[in-house]
Amino acid sequence: MKRSNVGAALALLCVVSAGDAIAAQVRPDPKPSPDVLQITPQLYRYTTELLFGEVWKRHELAARDRSLITLAALISAAQTAQMVGHLKLGLDNGLKPSEISAMITHLAFYAGWPNAMSAVPVTKTIFAERGITLEPNASAISAVVGAVGQQPSLADVTPQLAHYTDTVVFGGLWRQTDLGLRDRSLITIAALIAQGQSAQLLPYLNLAMDNGLSQSEAAEVVTHLAFYVGWPKAMSAVPIFKQVFASRG
Amino acid sequence: MKRSNVGAALALLCVVSAGDAIAAQVRPDPKPSPDVLQITPQLYRYTTELLFGEVWKRHELAARDRSLITLAALISAAQTAQMVGHLKLGLDNGLKPSEISAMITHLAFYAGWPNAMSAVPVTKTIFAERGITLEPNASAISAVVGAVGQQPSLADVTPQLAHYTDTVVFGGLWRQTDLGLRDRSLITIAALIAQGQSAQLLPYLNLAMDNGLSQSEAAEVVTHLAFYVGWPKAMSAVPIFKQVFASRG
Amino acid sequence: MKRSNVGAALALLCVVSAGDAIAAQVRPDPKPSPDVLQITPQLYRYTTELLFGEVWKRHELAARDRSLITLAALISAAQTAQMVGHLKLGLDNGLKPSEISAMITHLAFYAGWPNAMSAVPVTKTIFAERGITLEPNASAISAVVGAVGQQPSLADVTPQLAHYTDTVVFGGLWRQTDLGLRDRSLITIAALIAQGQSAQLLPYLNLAMDNGLSQSEAAEVVTHLAFYVGWPKAMSAVPIFKQVFASRG
Repeated sequence: MKRSNVGAALALLCVVSAGDAIAAQVRPDPKPSPDVLQITPQLYRYTTELLFGEVWKRHELAARDRSLITLAALISAAQTAQMVGHLKLGLDNGLKPSEISAMITHLAFYAGWPNAMSAVPVTKTIFAERGITLEPNASAISAVVGAVGQQPSLADVTPQLAHYTDTVVFGGLWRQTDLGLRDRSLITIAALIAQGQSAQLLPYLNLAMDNGLSQSEAAEVVTHLAFYVGWPKAMSAVPIFKQVFASRG
Repeated sequence: MKRSNVGAALALLCVVSAGDAIAAQVRPDPKPSPDVLQITPQLYRYTTELLFGEVWKRHELAARDRSLITLAALISAAQTAQMVGHLKLGLDNGLKPSEISAMITHLAFYAGWPNAMSAVPVTKTIFAERGITLEPNASAISAVVGAVGQQPSLADVTPQLAHYTDTVVFGGLWRQTDLGLRDRSLITIAALIAQGQSAQLLPYLNLAMDNGLSQSEAAEVVTHLAFYVGWPKAMSAVPIFKQVFASRG
Repeated sequence: MKRSNVGAALALLCVVSAGDAIAAQVRPDPKPSPDVLQITPQLYRYTTELLFGEVWKRHELAARDRSLITLAALISAAQTAQMVGHLKLGLDNGLKPSEISAMITHLAFYAGWPNAMSAVPVTKTIFAERGITLEPNASAISAVVGAVGQQPSLADVTPQLAHYTDTVVFGGLWRQTDLGLRDRSLITIAALIAQGQSAQLLPYLNLAMDNGLSQSEAAEVVTHLAFYVGWPKAMSAVPIFKQVFASRG
């Protein structure tokens, strides 16, 4: 997939969720379980003083976007136990239930069906606790109207996969309006880094920046994710970010 | 490991499970949980209309083989919650209990002991529900009779790992007759793609094709797995498939 | 990150846990669950005769170090079900509770917060079973006194991540004395291999060998981990080990 093709095909859609991006910045810090204090007191301090006390409060990325990429990383790795607190925090930080629903669907394609399916029961529990019901039409299928460029050999090697990529993924999923393009690309970036698939980051990072993600926000995405996917996977992503930043001047 | 060596050493074994490959093609579609319809209605539609309504019914790959690679991907990622439905579907699609048992053992080596061990309790539950008992001799250890080529430096760097690879993996595991070579290579391919280890695909894809996997079946394996491991890992595998297809003419 | 910088910055710390490395070598073999014998009899035999009957007893690596890297691999993949037996075995093999606690904290950075957090409840259960309470000061924060070299572009691309890497990871975490440098590098190596992030192994393997890991021990680390992370990820690590062994003569 070439960046220019993605850009060309998706530029017209440009559903920038600018209102969503300005979320409440100051929240009561979530506290880790007392078990963490008892068993790993040092980790407790890092969590309260560094991660929630400092990283989450940095202004380079909205709390709502931090929740978006944190949840995407958790869903991509089937970290259901850790989703409980982060679904609540995400809703507190301004993520709409329909966006969370759309994120799970998006990640079925970008992290696999089993990871998406595993996110449903815990999401149901949190939605029920808060009395949330989804609008019936919130995630209606939009018309499949186009295709997007992809790696040139895909159609030769796996024609049906190329077909699904064109029609279902880029022609369908990415055009659904329950989640903006900036959000979809952020989620995809988080999923790729969480899965150690940094080699495929480039077009999605360009797409995110085409749709309003600034360079300082992008750098903060990697910084934030280092805590949630581990330093090694974050470090593997840095060269791609460098390449994209350089190519955009 | 060089392909030619694998081929040379294993060609005589050639236990083609042709009968197994012709499994029942038409099955009642599994329905996702009502939770999926409630929380992620769009994902529900993709699951019923696209994944089970179309992908699983395509004739390019037998339903039995689809279950084989789906279960291999699930076991390789410790997706135990998702195994419940897919173990039932796999048995319905013609997988023998002894093949499922042998697959778990095979994946201990190709996805690690913890993932294999985690598959046992859920398999036990499904087997018990269906009154399945394994034949005591179904997975007897065959004689260890040979060794197979591997990456040239392995014996220099890690001689004991080279020894286990020769004697236990290729000299033992791969020669056990409770699972055919085409099946073992399909399972290995699914495990490698599920773990993002596409760099090691080449000899196993050649082995699968040496043992009867057609090019259109191979392409369908990637297409099917895209849904179960996510698009990124499937896309990372495509260049290797291209290379193997090209080298075989 | 360049190896020489890591070495230079950390050489003075050199808290070699030589006493810890000489752990009891002979232990009663853990037995897999009877379910394993029933559902996967062949895997049961591999587990009892090969893995515990032979691999764990090899003298090339102390049982205590085997437990250290096994637990690091399990924690890095959120394999909580498999941690129960291995936490007990690790304590039996001489791992101190404070070292297990420090390992979980270390892996928050090297495998991500969610994996570390998921290890806490099961560790609490095992500690409680054995009446273990951690010393309050066991994991006190040491002074942050220095910085360590890293990949040159990190500060340009993601300055805050570079800052945290310098001050929190290398200037803080690595200097805490509740876990020796040889142990921290072994844990990091296991985490990298378990996550398929072998590209980042090189400086940590050098650091481990600078702090007393012999070449035969290092080779045995890969051999042992092949069983716990699967052959493919172990094989991906072999070229890096070859490179480091060659560079050290």
